[in-house]
Amino acid sequence: MKVAILGFGTVGSGVYDIITKEAFPFYHDIKIEKILIRPNKTKTLPIMTDFIDDIINDNDINLVIECIGGINPALEYITAALKNKKSVVTANKAVIANNLETLENLARENGVFLSFEASTAGGIPWLASIEKARRVDTVSHFYGILNGTTNYILDTMDNNQEEFSTALGKAQELGYAEADSSADIDGIDVKNKVVISSAIAFNSIIDVNKILAFGIRNISKNDIDYFKEKNFSIKLIGEAQKIGNKYEALVIPNLFPRDSIEANVRRNLNIVTLQGDTIGELKFYGQGAGKLPTANAVVQDILDIHTEKVQHTLNTDAIIEYCDFLLKNKYYLRINQKIQNDLIENIEEFNGFYYHYTKDLTIKELIQLTDIFKMTDTNLFVIKER
Amino acid sequence: MKVAILGFGTVGSGVYDIITKEAFPFYHDIKIEKILIRPNKTKTLPIMTDFIDDIINDNDINLVIECIGGINPALEYITAALKNKKSVVTANKAVIANNLETLENLARENGVFLSFEASTAGGIPWLASIEKARRVDTVSHFYGILNGTTNYILDTMDNNQEEFSTALGKAQELGYAEADSSADIDGIDVKNKVVISSAIAFNSIIDVNKILAFGIRNISKNDIDYFKEKNFSIKLIGEAQKIGNKYEALVIPNLFPRDSIEANVRRNLNIVTLQGDTIGELKFYGQGAGKLPTANAVVQDILDIHTEKVQHTLNTDAIIEYCDFLLKNKYYLRINQKIQNDLIENIEEFNGFYYHYTKDLTIKELIQLTDIFKMTDTNLFVIKER
Repeated sequence: MKVAILGFGTVGSGVYDIITKEAFPFYHDIKIEKILIRPNKTKTLPIMTDFIDDIINDNDINLVIECIGGINPALEYITAALKNKKSVVTANKAVIANNLETLENLARENGVFLSFEASTAGGIPWLASIEKARRVDTVSHFYGILNGTTNYILDTMDNNQEEFSTALGKAQELGYAEADSSADIDGIDVKNKVVISSAIAFNSIIDVNKILAFGIRNISKNDIDYFKEKNFSIKLIGEAQKIGNKYEALVIPNLFPRDSIEANVRRNLNIVTLQGDTIGELKFYGQGAGKLPTANAVVQDILDIHTEKVQHTLNTDAIIEYCDFLLKNKYYLRINQKIQNDLIENIEEFNGFYYHYTKDLTIKELIQLTDIFKMTDTNLFVIKER
Repeated sequence: MKVAILGFGTVGSGVYDIITKEAFPFYHDIKIEKILIRPNKTKTLPIMTDFIDDIINDNDINLVIECIGGINPALEYITAALKNKKSVVTANKAVIANNLETLENLARENGVFLSFEASTAGGIPWLASIEKARRVDTVSHFYGILNGTTNYILDTMDNNQEEFSTALGKAQELGYAEADSSADIDGIDVKNKVVISSAIAFNSIIDVNKILAFGIRNISKNDIDYFKEKNFSIKLIGEAQKIGNKYEALVIPNLFPRDSIEANVRRNLNIVTLQGDTIGELKFYGQGAGKLPTANAVVQDILDIHTEKVQHTLNTDAIIEYCDFLLKNKYYLRINQKIQNDLIENIEEFNGFYYHYTKDLTIKELIQLTDIFKMTDTNLFVIKER
């Protein structure tokens, strides 16, 4: 199989490193024909080009590996490759979460494949595992730690009794967090991953804008301490649950007992759980990002296409729909004042902050309540009790 | 595809339940032609027979699902099925661990497949995950909690401050442990699973008798308390590690920090970890036994054969060999007396028992040392420091 790599940053060069190692079992089967680099970069290899048409119009290339990241021009290149009957493998969660239906239809029309294992939970074989579970079971629920940056921040705050800004600074120093970290800390990255996981788990495309995401931007050392006293750890969780032909999805910090598995997932690691009707709970743990783990997931997708182990599983005639009043749950809302509200069961003060423990709420009610609380204190922190 | 189920106990009836459910996505593709039951059982379904030749000689049947358990007649039936060009799916770890090379060769010669995912880690897609990881990486190390019964006993002793015999009794009441529980508590079950996992991970067959297994038969409440004070949990671990063309394997209780993931795997659950050169550490968690999880793994194997996603991966021209002086590690040996020995670094007394902390030892040295210690106290308990 002849392939081209678009982009030669962390992931692109990682894919190159794996495929060109002689010890790689498929070393003789997969040949990198071309690599797209930016016009301002030096061509360090003869197969490098800065002209996308060299790749899109090369009929020898059957598969394009998109490792550029961001929406444009990645989306444009993926679209052009599929139209030219090249399969596409990508790690690009933003492109996939926002365009999965269109791109999957395009792949199908052109008799090629679109694979994106590396987009969600990095090196963990997560999407493939959901797909496999679904061969036997209905997958009714999934949840997990899907963002390594925020897990690193929360773990560091918890271990070192640090404030959010200090822990974020460390994450940035280590290269876990970008200079603009809002996609991570506001839960946007996890939202994309929940959309992608839901597509595989429930065979249904959600509008990414429908999903509510609470991040960890407003978390304080005081919050960590308050919940630690109650024997809880805080983890940012993306999850979705299906009942009958309806499902709901949410991104929000969660409280886990300190002797649970999730509470003990350290540093920037990820863990994701699926629930099937006969298999029960399966958990998958590993590196959610990083050069070689992500590249490994990309190469696994390439091998599935190469060995014809892949199929179009996404049935876009979705018969289930998103619903924000499916399930009820209890939450804590922390602000700098006491607010009385019918949906609040109990209020506790801790170092001058007020922890409002809610009654059982639907997501819809939670949105209504947080909208009211935000008017009093924009630094509102919201967390879900599991 | 037409299949026969041998045995209609827990696993066999679970497989039947899954395949015959109309919601099962492959409901129309997989047809159960015959079920073998014992002569003394009532035939509750018209497809039931107590005559194995009805199945072996039926040319319509392409696949046999062995759910009898034990060595005989399971091995005899599997052999006959393969010789008659029927693929075999089995959950039988004892048969596979002791006969993998012969049976795999037989399958190959007859152009059929032998699959045994359910034999190791039950419902967890463990063997398939090792196989998948190996498409890209060298898998150099695996370890895990591979026996639910002993995990239940250890978790119960730890939670409830109970003695071994009380916890074992509870496990028996709940059906987790058999009346004769020696295969579980002496680590024989885990030894079989290590042999099977090693075959997939290292492409090499170990003689099951070569592997050293320390079980949990001699563990006491005193041991739990002593190590709890040092902030450790005890888990029975099966593991193997490869360096160059040599590898070692061992079954032994291990100490895990109480805030590690393994320490927080509760009840009868399993978790297994593999280490690959680009993927890093991946962990897989779920039900290691039970009717539906085990049946689920059996059905996954059937589907791989049905959809032709399976291949003969075991290369029995093994180029790596078992070695018991590859790695060094520290251990604790607990007996009722103090013994001085050059391999012991430190001795602590706790409630009248003596905890001998060793220097770094090879497996070979550990065997020599435990042989000496056993002469003084046959209730010797041995545990590995991770």
